[in-house]
Amino acid sequence: MTLPETRQSITDLFYESAHCIDTDRLEEWIDFFTDDGVYKIVPKENYDRGLPAVIVWCDNKDMLRDRIVSLRNANIYNFHTDRHIIGNIRFLSEDAGVHAVESNYALYQTDPEGESRLFSVGIYMDKVVFLDGAAKFKERIVIVDTCAVHSMVSTPI
Amino acid sequence: MTLPETRQSITDLFYESAHCIDTDRLEEWIDFFTDDGVYKIVPKENYDRGLPAVIVWCDNKDMLRDRIVSLRNANIYNFHTDRHIIGNIRFLSEDAGVHAVESNYALYQTDPEGESRLFSVGIYMDKVVFLDGAAKFKERIVIVDTCAVHSMVSTPI
Amino acid sequence: MTLPETRQSITDLFYESAHCIDTDRLEEWIDFFTDDGVYKIVPKENYDRGLPAVIVWCDNKDMLRDRIVSLRNANIYNFHTDRHIIGNIRFLSEDAGVHAVESNYALYQTDPEGESRLFSVGIYMDKVVFLDGAAKFKERIVIVDTCAVHSMVSTPI
Repeated sequence: MTLPETRQSITDLFYESAHCIDTDRLEEWIDFFTDDGVYKIVPKENYDRGLPAVIVWCDNKDMLRDRIVSLRNANIYNFHTDRHIIGNIRFLSEDAGVHAVESNYALYQTDPEGESRLFSVGIYMDKVVFLDGAAKFKERIVIVDTCAVHSMVSTPI
Repeated sequence: MTLPETRQSITDLFYESAHCIDTDRLEEWIDFFTDDGVYKIVPKENYDRGLPAVIVWCDNKDMLRDRIVSLRNANIYNFHTDRHIIGNIRFLSEDAGVHAVESNYALYQTDPEGESRLFSVGIYMDKVVFLDGAAKFKERIVIVDTCAVHSMVSTPI
Repeated sequence: MTLPETRQSITDLFYESAHCIDTDRLEEWIDFFTDDGVYKIVPKENYDRGLPAVIVWCDNKDMLRDRIVSLRNANIYNFHTDRHIIGNIRFLSEDAGVHAVESNYALYQTDPEGESRLFSVGIYMDKVVFLDGAAKFKERIVIVDTCAVHSMVSTPI
Protein backbone atom coordinates (compact mmCIF):
# COMPACT_ATOMS: atom_id res chain seq x y z
CA MET A 1 0.00 0.00 0.00
CA THR A 2 1.35 3.39 -0.99
CA LEU A 3 1.42 5.78 1.98
CA PRO A 4 -1.14 8.59 2.02
CA GLU A 5 1.57 11.29 1.89
CA THR A 6 3.18 9.61 -1.10
CA ARG A 7 -0.17 9.30 -2.87
CA GLN A 8 -0.79 12.98 -2.26
CA SER A 9 2.63 14.03 -3.59
CA ILE A 10 2.19 11.97 -6.74
CA THR A 11 -1.35 13.27 -7.19
CA ASP A 12 -0.04 16.82 -6.83
CA LEU A 13 2.62 16.08 -9.46
CA PHE A 14 -0.09 15.01 -11.89
CA TYR A 15 -2.23 18.10 -11.25
CA GLU A 16 0.59 20.65 -11.20
CA SER A 17 2.16 19.32 -14.38
CA ALA A 18 -1.22 19.30 -16.16
CA HIS A 19 -1.79 22.86 -15.00
CA CYS A 20 1.48 23.88 -16.67
CA ILE A 21 0.16 22.56 -19.98
CA ASP A 22 -3.26 24.14 -19.44
CA THR A 23 -1.63 27.54 -18.87
CA ASP A 24 0.84 27.07 -21.74
CA ARG A 25 3.91 27.01 -19.50
CA LEU A 26 5.46 24.10 -21.36
CA GLU A 27 9.00 25.03 -20.37
CA GLU A 28 8.07 24.60 -16.70
CA TRP A 29 6.23 21.38 -17.50
CA ILE A 30 9.57 19.83 -18.53
CA ASP A 31 10.93 20.35 -15.03
CA PHE A 32 8.54 17.71 -13.71
CA PHE A 33 10.70 15.11 -15.50
CA THR A 34 14.01 13.64 -14.34
CA ASP A 35 17.04 14.34 -16.58
CA ASP A 36 16.68 10.87 -18.11
CA GLY A 37 12.89 11.14 -18.14
CA VAL A 38 11.03 9.42 -20.95
CA TYR A 39 7.87 10.86 -22.51
CA LYS A 40 5.92 8.98 -25.16
CA ILE A 41 2.51 9.33 -26.76
CA VAL A 42 1.36 5.99 -28.20
CA PRO A 43 -1.90 5.19 -30.02
CA LYS A 44 -3.81 2.56 -28.05
CA GLU A 45 -4.17 0.42 -31.16
CA ASN A 46 -0.39 0.19 -31.56
CA TYR A 47 0.18 -0.33 -27.86
CA ASP A 48 -2.33 -3.20 -27.75
CA ARG A 49 -0.76 -4.93 -30.76
CA GLY A 50 2.84 -4.27 -29.73
CA LEU A 51 3.44 -2.13 -32.83
CA PRO A 52 6.39 0.25 -32.57
CA ALA A 53 4.91 3.41 -34.13
CA VAL A 54 4.38 6.27 -31.71
CA ILE A 55 3.22 9.86 -32.02
CA VAL A 56 5.85 11.38 -29.73
CA TRP A 57 9.00 9.77 -28.30
CA CYS A 58 11.36 11.75 -26.11
CA ASP A 59 14.08 9.74 -24.37
CA ASN A 60 15.37 12.41 -22.02
CA LYS A 61 14.84 15.96 -20.86
CA ASP A 62 16.95 17.49 -23.66
CA MET A 63 14.72 15.90 -26.28
CA LEU A 64 11.68 17.25 -24.45
CA ARG A 65 13.29 20.69 -24.40
CA ASP A 66 13.98 20.52 -28.15
CA ARG A 67 10.40 19.54 -28.79
CA ILE A 68 9.04 22.51 -26.86
CA VAL A 69 11.39 24.91 -28.67
CA SER A 70 10.24 23.55 -32.02
CA LEU A 71 6.60 23.80 -30.93
CA ARG A 72 7.16 27.43 -29.99
CA ASN A 73 8.53 28.13 -33.47
CA ALA A 74 6.36 25.92 -35.63
CA ASN A 75 3.01 25.66 -34.03
CA ILE A 76 1.88 29.24 -34.49
CA TYR A 77 -1.36 28.34 -36.23
CA ASN A 78 -2.75 25.95 -33.66
CA PHE A 79 -3.88 28.33 -30.93
CA HIS A 80 -6.00 26.64 -28.33
CA THR A 81 -6.52 26.34 -24.60
CA ASP A 82 -6.08 22.94 -23.00
CA ARG A 83 -8.08 21.76 -20.01
CA HIS A 84 -7.26 18.46 -18.34
CA ILE A 85 -9.41 16.34 -16.12
CA ILE A 86 -7.31 13.58 -14.57
CA GLY A 87 -9.12 10.85 -12.72
CA ASN A 88 -9.09 7.26 -11.52
CA ILE A 89 -5.51 7.38 -10.19
CA ARG A 90 -4.36 3.85 -9.37
CA PHE A 91 -1.19 3.23 -7.37
CA LEU A 92 0.03 -0.11 -8.70
CA SER A 93 3.37 -0.85 -7.06
CA GLU A 94 6.61 0.48 -5.67
CA ASP A 95 9.94 -1.08 -6.51
CA ALA A 96 13.27 0.38 -5.38
CA GLY A 97 11.79 3.85 -5.09
CA VAL A 98 10.01 3.73 -8.45
CA HIS A 99 6.23 4.10 -8.20
CA ALA A 100 4.12 2.64 -10.99
CA VAL A 101 0.93 4.69 -11.24
CA GLU A 102 -1.82 4.82 -13.84
CA SER A 103 -4.56 7.38 -14.34
CA ASN A 104 -7.21 8.27 -16.89
CA TYR A 105 -7.47 11.66 -18.55
CA ALA A 106 -9.91 13.64 -20.62
CA LEU A 107 -8.34 16.56 -22.45
CA TYR A 108 -10.57 19.33 -23.79
CA GLN A 109 -9.44 22.04 -26.15
CA THR A 110 -11.05 25.40 -26.66
CA ASP A 111 -10.39 27.36 -29.83
CA PRO A 112 -10.01 31.16 -30.07
CA GLU A 113 -13.75 31.49 -30.76
CA GLY A 114 -14.41 29.96 -27.36
CA GLU A 115 -15.75 26.62 -28.58
CA SER A 116 -14.72 23.62 -26.48
CA ARG A 117 -14.51 20.04 -27.62
CA LEU A 118 -13.18 16.74 -26.42
CA PHE A 119 -9.69 16.46 -27.85
CA SER A 120 -8.40 13.19 -26.41
CA VAL A 121 -9.07 10.52 -23.82
CA GLY A 122 -6.67 7.86 -22.68
CA ILE A 123 -4.47 6.62 -19.90
CA TYR A 124 -1.20 7.77 -18.35
CA MET A 125 1.17 4.94 -17.43
CA ASP A 126 3.80 6.52 -15.20
CA LYS A 127 6.97 5.72 -13.33
CA VAL A 128 7.45 8.31 -10.59
CA VAL A 129 10.52 8.80 -8.41
CA PHE A 130 11.36 11.26 -5.66
CA LEU A 131 14.38 13.59 -6.06
CA ASP A 132 15.22 15.65 -2.97
CA GLY A 133 11.68 15.02 -1.80
CA ALA A 134 10.04 16.19 -5.03
CA ALA A 135 8.01 13.77 -7.16
CA LYS A 136 9.22 13.58 -10.77
CA PHE A 137 8.33 11.63 -13.87
CA LYS A 138 10.99 9.08 -14.71
CA GLU A 139 8.64 7.87 -17.40
CA ARG A 140 5.26 8.99 -18.69
CA ILE A 141 3.68 6.87 -21.39
CA VAL A 142 0.44 8.36 -22.71
CA ILE A 143 -1.78 5.76 -24.35
CA VAL A 144 -4.30 7.69 -26.43
CA ASP A 145 -7.63 6.06 -27.21
CA THR A 146 -8.37 8.92 -29.61
CA CYS A 147 -6.19 8.61 -32.68
CA ALA A 148 -8.56 9.21 -35.57
CA VAL A 149 -7.91 12.90 -35.91
CA HIS A 150 -5.14 15.33 -35.09
CA SER A 151 -2.48 12.64 -34.92
CA MET A 152 -0.21 15.29 -36.48
CA VAL A 153 -0.70 17.50 -33.44
CA SER A 154 2.35 17.16 -31.27
CA THR A 155 1.57 19.30 -28.25
CA PRO A 156 1.99 17.51 -24.91
CA ILE A 157 -0.99 15.68 -23.44
CA MET B 1 -17.07 10.87 9.07
CA THR B 2 -15.71 7.99 7.04
CA LEU B 3 -12.10 7.17 7.96
CA PRO B 4 -9.38 8.13 5.46
CA GLU B 5 -8.33 4.47 4.98
CA THR B 6 -11.92 3.46 4.30
CA ARG B 7 -12.39 6.30 1.83
CA GLN B 8 -9.22 5.22 0.05
CA SER B 9 -10.30 1.57 -0.14
CA ILE B 10 -13.70 2.50 -1.55
CA THR B 11 -12.11 4.93 -4.00
CA ASP B 12 -9.73 2.17 -5.11
CA LEU B 13 -12.72 -0.15 -5.61
CA PHE B 14 -14.32 2.41 -7.92
CA TYR B 15 -11.15 2.93 -9.95
CA GLU B 16 -10.11 -0.73 -10.17
CA SER B 17 -13.57 -1.89 -11.19
CA ALA B 18 -13.82 0.84 -13.84
CA HIS B 19 -10.41 -0.16 -15.14
CA CYS B 20 -11.70 -3.72 -15.61
CA ILE B 21 -14.42 -2.37 -17.89
CA ASP B 22 -12.01 -0.05 -19.71
CA THR B 23 -9.71 -2.98 -20.45
CA ASP B 24 -12.61 -5.30 -21.36
CA ARG B 25 -12.01 -7.67 -18.44
CA LEU B 26 -15.71 -7.91 -17.64
CA GLU B 27 -15.38 -11.34 -15.99
CA GLU B 28 -13.01 -9.83 -13.41
CA TRP B 29 -15.29 -6.81 -13.00
CA ILE B 30 -17.98 -9.14 -11.61
CA ASP B 31 -15.69 -10.12 -8.74
CA PHE B 32 -16.01 -6.64 -7.29
CA PHE B 33 -19.60 -7.56 -6.36
CA THR B 34 -20.80 -9.62 -3.40
CA ASP B 35 -22.60 -12.86 -4.21
CA ASP B 36 -25.93 -11.13 -3.63
CA GLY B 37 -24.73 -7.95 -5.29
CA VAL B 38 -27.27 -5.88 -7.21
CA TYR B 39 -26.41 -4.00 -10.40
CA LYS B 40 -28.94 -1.76 -12.11
CA ILE B 41 -28.81 0.86 -14.85
CA VAL B 42 -31.77 3.22 -14.58
CA PRO B 43 -32.64 6.21 -16.78
CA LYS B 44 -32.65 9.36 -14.67
CA GLU B 45 -36.10 10.27 -15.97
CA ASN B 46 -37.57 7.03 -14.64
CA TYR B 47 -35.66 7.26 -11.38
CA ASP B 48 -36.90 10.80 -10.74
CA ARG B 49 -40.53 9.81 -11.43
CA GLY B 50 -40.38 6.51 -9.59
CA LEU B 51 -41.08 4.58 -12.79
CA PRO B 52 -40.08 0.93 -12.72
CA ALA B 53 -38.47 0.56 -16.17
CA VAL B 54 -34.73 0.00 -16.11
CA ILE B 55 -32.07 -0.70 -18.75
CA VAL B 56 -30.25 -3.42 -16.82
CA TRP B 57 -31.29 -5.22 -13.66
CA CYS B 58 -29.12 -7.94 -12.14
CA ASP B 59 -30.11 -9.15 -8.70
CA ASN B 60 -27.06 -11.20 -7.88
CA LYS B 61 -23.66 -12.25 -9.15
CA ASP B 62 -25.01 -15.16 -11.20
CA MET B 63 -27.23 -12.82 -13.18
CA LEU B 64 -24.26 -10.56 -13.75
CA ARG B 65 -22.26 -13.56 -14.95
CA ASP B 66 -25.04 -14.57 -17.35
CA ARG B 67 -25.15 -11.07 -18.74
CA ILE B 68 -21.43 -11.02 -19.43
CA VAL B 69 -21.60 -14.43 -21.12
CA SER B 70 -24.42 -13.23 -23.34
CA LEU B 71 -22.51 -10.02 -24.12
CA ARG B 72 -19.51 -12.09 -25.16
CA ASN B 73 -21.70 -14.06 -27.55
CA ALA B 74 -24.07 -11.43 -28.84
CA ASN B 75 -22.26 -8.16 -28.86
CA ILE B 76 -19.75 -8.89 -31.58
CA TYR B 77 -20.63 -5.87 -33.68
CA ASN B 78 -20.21 -3.21 -31.04
CA PHE B 79 -16.45 -2.96 -30.74
CA HIS B 80 -15.36 0.00 -28.73
CA THR B 81 -12.98 1.10 -26.01
CA ASP B 82 -14.43 2.52 -22.81
CA ARG B 83 -12.72 5.20 -20.77
CA HIS B 84 -14.17 6.25 -17.41
CA ILE B 85 -13.59 9.40 -15.48
CA ILE B 86 -15.10 9.05 -12.01
CA GLY B 87 -15.29 12.14 -9.86
CA ASN B 88 -17.03 13.94 -7.04
CA ILE B 89 -17.06 10.93 -4.71
CA ARG B 90 -19.31 11.67 -1.73
CA PHE B 91 -19.32 9.44 1.35
CA LEU B 92 -22.85 9.74 2.65
CA SER B 93 -23.22 7.40 5.58
CA GLU B 94 -22.27 4.12 7.21
CA ASP B 95 -24.83 1.82 8.75
CA ALA B 96 -23.97 -1.63 10.12
CA GLY B 97 -20.95 -1.91 7.87
CA VAL B 98 -22.75 -0.73 4.74
CA HIS B 99 -21.29 2.43 3.22
CA ALA B 100 -23.55 4.60 1.09
CA VAL B 101 -21.41 6.41 -1.45
CA GLU B 102 -22.28 8.41 -4.56
CA SER B 103 -20.04 9.55 -7.39
CA ASN B 104 -20.37 11.12 -10.82
CA TYR B 105 -19.01 9.57 -13.97
CA ALA B 106 -18.33 10.51 -17.54
CA LEU B 107 -17.91 7.54 -19.86
CA TYR B 108 -16.24 8.01 -23.24
CA GLN B 109 -16.21 5.46 -26.00
CA THR B 110 -13.73 5.24 -28.83
CA ASP B 111 -14.62 3.34 -31.98
CA PRO B 112 -12.25 1.19 -34.05
CA GLU B 113 -11.43 4.20 -36.24
CA GLY B 114 -10.08 5.95 -33.13
CA GLU B 115 -12.84 8.53 -32.78
CA SER B 116 -13.85 9.29 -29.21
CA ARG B 117 -17.16 10.63 -28.03
CA LEU B 118 -19.06 11.16 -24.83
CA PHE B 119 -21.17 8.05 -24.35
CA SER B 120 -22.88 8.62 -21.01
CA VAL B 121 -22.85 10.81 -17.93
CA GLY B 122 -24.62 10.10 -14.68
CA ILE B 123 -24.27 9.11 -11.08
CA TYR B 124 -23.33 5.92 -9.25
CA MET B 125 -25.37 5.27 -6.09
CA ASP B 126 -23.52 2.53 -4.25
CA LYS B 127 -23.71 0.37 -1.18
CA VAL B 128 -20.24 -0.89 -0.34
CA VAL B 129 -19.31 -3.54 2.23
CA PHE B 130 -16.00 -5.06 3.29
CA LEU B 131 -15.48 -8.84 2.94
CA ASP B 132 -12.23 -10.13 4.44
CA GLY B 133 -10.92 -6.59 4.25
CA ALA B 134 -11.77 -6.10 0.57
CA ALA B 135 -14.31 -3.49 -0.52
CA LYS B 136 -17.16 -4.94 -2.61
CA PHE B 137 -20.32 -3.65 -4.22
CA LYS B 138 -23.40 -4.89 -2.41
CA GLU B 139 -25.37 -2.61 -4.70
CA ARG B 140 -24.48 -0.36 -7.59
CA ILE B 141 -27.32 1.67 -9.07
CA VAL B 142 -26.24 3.64 -12.14
CA ILE B 143 -28.55 6.56 -12.84
CA VAL B 144 -27.88 7.61 -16.43
CA ASP B 145 -28.61 11.19 -17.46
CA THR B 146 -27.97 10.18 -21.06
CA CYS B 147 -30.80 8.04 -22.32
CA ALA B 148 -31.60 9.43 -25.76
CA VAL B 149 -29.44 7.05 -27.72
CA HIS B 150 -27.94 3.62 -27.33
CA SER B 151 -30.44 2.51 -24.73
CA MET B 152 -30.22 -0.87 -26.40
CA VAL B 153 -26.56 -1.05 -25.53
CA SER B 154 -26.22 -3.24 -22.49
CA THR B 155 -22.51 -3.16 -21.72
CA PRO B 156 -21.70 -2.25 -18.11
CA ILE B 157 -21.19 1.40 -17.21
CA MET C 1 1.23 21.87 3.12
CA THR C 2 -2.49 21.80 3.70
CA LEU C 3 -3.43 19.14 6.26
CA PRO C 4 -5.18 15.99 4.97
CA GLU C 5 -8.34 16.71 7.01
CA THR C 6 -8.50 20.25 5.62
CA ARG C 7 -8.02 19.00 2.08
CA GLN C 8 -10.80 16.52 2.61
CA SER C 9 -13.20 19.13 4.00
CA ILE C 10 -12.53 21.49 1.10
CA THR C 11 -12.88 18.65 -1.39
CA ASP C 12 -16.20 17.71 0.21
CA LEU C 13 -17.34 21.35 -0.09
CA PHE C 14 -16.62 21.25 -3.84
CA TYR C 15 -18.47 17.97 -4.36
CA GLU C 16 -21.47 18.73 -2.14
CA SER C 17 -22.01 22.17 -3.65
CA ALA C 18 -21.75 20.78 -7.18
CA HIS C 19 -24.26 18.09 -6.24
CA CYS C 20 -26.72 20.81 -5.20
CA ILE C 21 -26.51 22.28 -8.69
CA ASP C 22 -26.74 18.85 -10.34
CA THR C 23 -29.93 18.12 -8.39
CA ASP C 24 -31.35 21.60 -8.98
CA ARG C 25 -31.25 22.57 -5.29
CA LEU C 26 -29.88 26.02 -6.03
CA GLU C 27 -31.28 27.53 -2.84
CA GLU C 28 -29.17 25.10 -0.80
CA TRP C 29 -26.17 25.75 -3.01
CA ILE C 30 -26.15 29.35 -1.78
CA ASP C 31 -25.58 28.17 1.77
CA PHE C 32 -22.09 27.02 0.86
CA PHE C 33 -21.14 30.71 0.61
CA THR C 34 -20.30 33.12 3.44
CA ASP C 35 -22.61 36.11 3.86
CA ASP C 36 -20.08 38.30 2.04
CA GLY C 37 -19.29 35.53 -0.43
CA VAL C 38 -18.40 36.55 -3.98
CA TYR C 39 -19.42 34.51 -7.03
CA LYS C 40 -18.28 35.45 -10.51
CA ILE C 41 -18.28 33.76 -13.90
CA VAL C 42 -15.63 35.29 -16.15
CA PRO C 43 -14.74 34.37 -19.75
CA LYS C 44 -11.13 33.19 -19.88
CA GLU C 45 -10.39 35.60 -22.71
CA ASN C 46 -11.41 38.57 -20.56
CA TYR C 47 -9.63 37.22 -17.50
CA ASP C 48 -6.37 36.75 -19.42
CA ARG C 49 -6.50 40.28 -20.85
CA GLY C 50 -7.66 41.94 -17.65
CA LEU C 51 -10.92 43.05 -19.28
CA PRO C 52 -13.72 43.87 -16.86
CA ALA C 53 -16.68 42.18 -18.58
CA VAL C 54 -18.09 39.17 -16.75
CA ILE C 55 -21.04 36.83 -17.27
CA VAL C 56 -22.18 36.74 -13.65
CA TRP C 57 -21.07 38.93 -10.75
CA CYS C 58 -22.58 38.48 -7.29
CA ASP C 59 -20.88 40.38 -4.47
CA ASN C 60 -22.62 38.76 -1.53
CA LYS C 61 -25.13 36.11 -0.56
CA ASP C 62 -28.14 38.39 -1.05
CA MET C 63 -27.20 39.00 -4.66
CA LEU C 64 -26.82 35.25 -5.12
CA ARG C 65 -30.26 34.73 -3.60
CA ASP C 66 -31.79 37.32 -5.95
CA ARG C 67 -30.21 35.61 -8.90
CA ILE C 68 -31.66 32.24 -7.96
CA VAL C 69 -35.12 33.75 -7.45
CA SER C 70 -34.95 35.37 -10.87
CA LEU C 71 -33.74 32.12 -12.42
CA ARG C 72 -36.69 30.31 -10.89
CA ASN C 73 -39.07 32.82 -12.47
CA ALA C 74 -37.42 33.50 -15.80
CA ASN C 75 -35.61 30.38 -16.85
CA ILE C 76 -38.60 28.16 -17.44
CA TYR C 77 -37.65 27.27 -21.00
CA ASN C 78 -34.13 26.04 -20.32
CA PHE C 79 -34.80 22.68 -18.72
CA HIS C 80 -31.70 20.59 -18.41
CA THR C 81 -29.81 18.34 -16.03
CA ASP C 82 -26.31 19.37 -14.99
CA ARG C 83 -23.55 16.89 -14.23
CA HIS C 84 -20.22 18.11 -12.88
CA ILE C 85 -16.90 16.38 -12.93
CA ILE C 86 -14.45 18.31 -10.76
CA GLY C 87 -10.82 17.31 -10.92
CA ASN C 88 -7.21 18.35 -10.48
CA ILE C 89 -7.78 20.09 -7.14
CA ARG C 90 -4.68 22.10 -6.23
CA PHE C 91 -4.24 23.54 -2.74
CA LEU C 92 -2.18 26.67 -3.34
CA SER C 93 -1.81 28.48 -0.04
CA GLU C 94 -3.29 29.38 3.30
CA ASP C 95 -3.17 32.89 4.66
CA ALA C 96 -4.92 33.93 7.87
CA GLY C 97 -7.44 31.12 7.58
CA VAL C 98 -8.18 31.73 3.89
CA HIS C 99 -7.36 28.79 1.65
CA ALA C 100 -6.61 29.49 -2.00
CA VAL C 101 -7.62 26.43 -4.01
CA GLU C 102 -8.01 25.85 -7.74
CA SER C 103 -9.70 23.00 -9.57
CA ASN C 104 -10.75 22.11 -13.10
CA TYR C 105 -14.29 21.24 -14.06
CA ALA C 106 -16.18 19.73 -16.95
CA LEU C 107 -19.90 20.46 -16.90
CA TYR C 108 -22.24 18.33 -18.98
CA GLN C 109 -25.86 19.14 -19.65
CA THR C 110 -28.56 16.71 -20.65
CA ASP C 111 -31.72 17.97 -22.32
CA PRO C 112 -35.24 16.61 -21.76
CA GLU C 113 -34.78 14.20 -24.68
CA GLY C 114 -31.91 12.61 -22.80
CA GLU C 115 -29.09 13.88 -25.01
CA SER C 116 -25.93 14.86 -23.15
CA ARG C 117 -23.31 17.29 -24.33
CA LEU C 118 -20.31 19.12 -23.00
CA PHE C 119 -21.58 22.47 -21.80
CA SER C 120 -18.54 24.14 -20.31
CA VAL C 121 -14.98 23.50 -19.19
CA GLY C 122 -12.83 25.80 -17.11
CA ILE C 123 -11.26 26.42 -13.75
CA TYR C 124 -12.56 27.35 -10.31
CA MET C 125 -10.37 29.83 -8.43
CA ASP C 126 -11.60 29.73 -4.84
CA LYS C 127 -11.02 31.31 -1.47
CA VAL C 128 -12.32 28.96 1.21
CA VAL C 129 -12.74 29.70 4.93
CA PHE C 130 -14.04 27.66 7.84
CA LEU C 131 -17.06 28.91 9.82
CA ASP C 132 -17.87 26.87 12.94
CA GLY C 133 -15.87 24.04 11.40
CA ALA C 134 -17.73 24.09 8.07
CA ALA C 135 -15.90 24.96 4.85
CA LYS C 136 -17.51 27.86 2.93
CA PHE C 137 -16.79 29.81 -0.22
CA LYS C 138 -15.61 33.31 0.58
CA GLU C 139 -14.98 33.68 -3.12
CA ARG C 140 -15.56 31.48 -6.14
CA ILE C 141 -14.32 32.82 -9.46
CA VAL C 142 -15.25 30.57 -12.37
CA ILE C 143 -13.03 31.13 -15.39
CA VAL C 144 -14.84 29.59 -18.35
CA ASP C 145 -12.80 28.43 -21.33
CA THR C 146 -16.05 27.87 -23.21
CA CYS C 147 -17.62 31.19 -24.11
CA ALA C 148 -18.65 30.80 -27.73
CA VAL C 149 -22.21 29.73 -27.05
CA HIS C 150 -24.75 30.06 -24.32
CA SER C 151 -23.10 33.11 -22.79
CA MET C 152 -26.65 34.27 -22.17
CA VAL C 153 -27.21 31.29 -19.92
CA SER C 154 -26.88 32.42 -16.35
CA THR C 155 -27.35 29.26 -14.33
CA PRO C 156 -24.57 28.57 -11.82
CA ILE C 157 -21.56 26.54 -12.92
